[in-house]
Amino acid sequence: MKDMERAASDLLQEARDGIDKIDADLVRLLQKRKSLVQEVAKIKSAHGLPVYLPVRENDLIRARRKEAKAVGLSPDLLEDILRRIMRESYKAEAGQFKSTMEHPAPVVLVGGGGEMGRLFSKLFTQSGYEVRVLEAGDWDRASDLLNGAGLVLMAVPISATLDVLQQLKGLLPETCVLADMTSTKAEPLAKMMEVHDGPVLGLHPMFGPDTRVLAKQVVVWCRGRRHEACQWLLDQFQIWGATLLEAEPDQHDRMMAIIQAMRHFETFVYGVHLQEEDVDLGRILEFSSPIYRLELGMIGRLFAQDPRLYADIIFSSKEGKAIVHRYLGRFSRLEKLLKANDRDGFIRHFKSAAQWFGQFAEHFLEESNHMIEKADERRHRKP
Amino acid sequence: MKDMERAASDLLQEARDGIDKIDADLVRLLQKRKSLVQEVAKIKSAHGLPVYLPVRENDLIRARRKEAKAVGLSPDLLEDILRRIMRESYKAEAGQFKSTMEHPAPVVLVGGGGEMGRLFSKLFTQSGYEVRVLEAGDWDRASDLLNGAGLVLMAVPISATLDVLQQLKGLLPETCVLADMTSTKAEPLAKMMEVHDGPVLGLHPMFGPDTRVLAKQVVVWCRGRRHEACQWLLDQFQIWGATLLEAEPDQHDRMMAIIQAMRHFETFVYGVHLQEEDVDLGRILEFSSPIYRLELGMIGRLFAQDPRLYADIIFSSKEGKAIVHRYLGRFSRLEKLLKANDRDGFIRHFKSAAQWFGQFAEHFLEESNHMIEKADERRHRKP
Repeated sequence: MKDMERAASDLLQEARDGIDKIDADLVRLLQKRKSLVQEVAKIKSAHGLPVYLPVRENDLIRARRKEAKAVGLSPDLLEDILRRIMRESYKAEAGQFKSTMEHPAPVVLVGGGGEMGRLFSKLFTQSGYEVRVLEAGDWDRASDLLNGAGLVLMAVPISATLDVLQQLKGLLPETCVLADMTSTKAEPLAKMMEVHDGPVLGLHPMFGPDTRVLAKQVVVWCRGRRHEACQWLLDQFQIWGATLLEAEPDQHDRMMAIIQAMRHFETFVYGVHLQEEDVDLGRILEFSSPIYRLELGMIGRLFAQDPRLYADIIFSSKEGKAIVHRYLGRFSRLEKLLKANDRDGFIRHFKSAAQWFGQFAEHFLEESNHMIEKADERRHRKP
Repeated sequence: MKDMERAASDLLQEARDGIDKIDADLVRLLQKRKSLVQEVAKIKSAHGLPVYLPVRENDLIRARRKEAKAVGLSPDLLEDILRRIMRESYKAEAGQFKSTMEHPAPVVLVGGGGEMGRLFSKLFTQSGYEVRVLEAGDWDRASDLLNGAGLVLMAVPISATLDVLQQLKGLLPETCVLADMTSTKAEPLAKMMEVHDGPVLGLHPMFGPDTRVLAKQVVVWCRGRRHEACQWLLDQFQIWGATLLEAEPDQHDRMMAIIQAMRHFETFVYGVHLQEEDVDLGRILEFSSPIYRLELGMIGRLFAQDPRLYADIIFSSKEGKAIVHRYLGRFSRLEKLLKANDRDGFIRHFKSAAQWFGQFAEHFLEESNHMIEKADERRHRKP
């Protein structure tokens, strides 16, 4: 019996040594891949080619999926690994970009000292533009800073945007592009049109300042004035890897009221709720399967961030406030189902909403299952 | 100029061919790894060793992280890839398990035709137990099915659990373990103690029936009666890879009221809300950066599932109903901040909650950022 166990333990050790050797080979392979990717990045950068090429990426993945299947490996496994490697590659590729303005004129970042401002300051600099920052204390030398600018880009908090635009009136070079990155679009765009007679473009990068690379990130843009003179700026975003999406300002703002203002407010309430219930977060995490862990994570992450940022987003959206109010009415109405113990009523509402979601429900289930599986991989890291 | 472009294009092609070759090597490496893992699984299964060994896994990852760092690769990249490969390995390892009962007695799954029942039917069968299913139509031959059973495991919906337990009274072999998998614990456990004088164990697997392997999944257990006679069942769960967590029934139920009943009800309301606002889901997805995409996903996924399951969870939790009611009160109170345009009040509440979250807020932010980055990898798949 002892001998058999020893034999088993030897076999196990042998197999494990084999696995360790393969994993070490994997490290070497990844290192070789990285240096080739860096070569590609150099060539791309020298010739002004976009960082992110969905066609090349999808072809590559399709080919590898096929090979995996042929040798009895899971194609999804291969795809997941390759996408993870590619995400790392975008980071490696960032560093230098071609400028899309033929003779790069200076870029003035208004509020460039903020987090978003710093991100774009870096990107414009890496693309060969001279970047000038105009902060609250710089108004006495504003005309110097703005002199000869090809772009004046607003990177101030929402609550200050309209006032700062007003201050810029009369100081902007006639031909420069005036653009903003505010998370509402109708009001700032109208104000930009008012204070500037030249080219105007509304932008809303749909990501936070902790995003280091723009590959695959969405940037919404709204037409202002003389679009042909703004095209170089959109092209520049594309070279950085962003995905561009045109929208009407009003449509954009309604979407944001739902995606941002409403959702953030609800998350805020949920956090206060957990606090007032005084739940034991450590213990609740132990209990939580990946999906709940993720849901808790979505709530908790809010409170690690700047309250002013969220106050700005929520309080600046009139439509958001109205939607929150309607949500409260619905919650209150549906809570009556619980009081009345009306299980059938609950199921009726559920089915009606499910029908309205249609194929999206299935899609969301599949996509989030995939993510939950990934969350699993991190299950046993310490909190 | 043309020539230079041609030269660049040749260089690019060459580098890309190199990358393709490396990726093909990667496929081969993964295939070799898979067959070694299968060997390990065979040895483990023959000797009754647990599928999931956190120590071995963490040692392996630590070693690879170190090697990655040494050659200038991101240790996180290596860790993510290895964890993804390991997740696939657990699937490969599933298939056969050692039984922890010395002489495996039959297992009776009450409601074994349901989804959870089918999952456990498979696992017990793979571990050498005879599995018998007792469904609603089988009561006339119940005593035959229960004869000689070593375990009677309840896998019926919450709403039916107490009634079915009542029906079992007087039919259970004296020494068999009676256990349930209901998502509340206090009531079912008390009822089990009432209908059976032998060993009793309360279980709550914290995962859904679409989980194919138990590796890393949490199973909560509550002490019933004669625990020493139930230990083999907990051991069996461990062999399947589960992480066990003991809890008091009341504590468990309060946690579940918060994690499940409250959260599901809120998600339900949010879905009805989106329906009544009649938002354009396709368009909203285009607008959504990964974090919002994920949040939408968490709502939408609910409606791809069985409304009765959620009705069961929500309506069976008295504490859940009370918590939902308190949440509504808080929402209504905090909404007044919006009406009064009380930005400072919002920030005050936010900061107080942030303080209560303490280090967990940072932890949640970091963990969810990691997941959002992963969600990014899937950004451009069609809905």
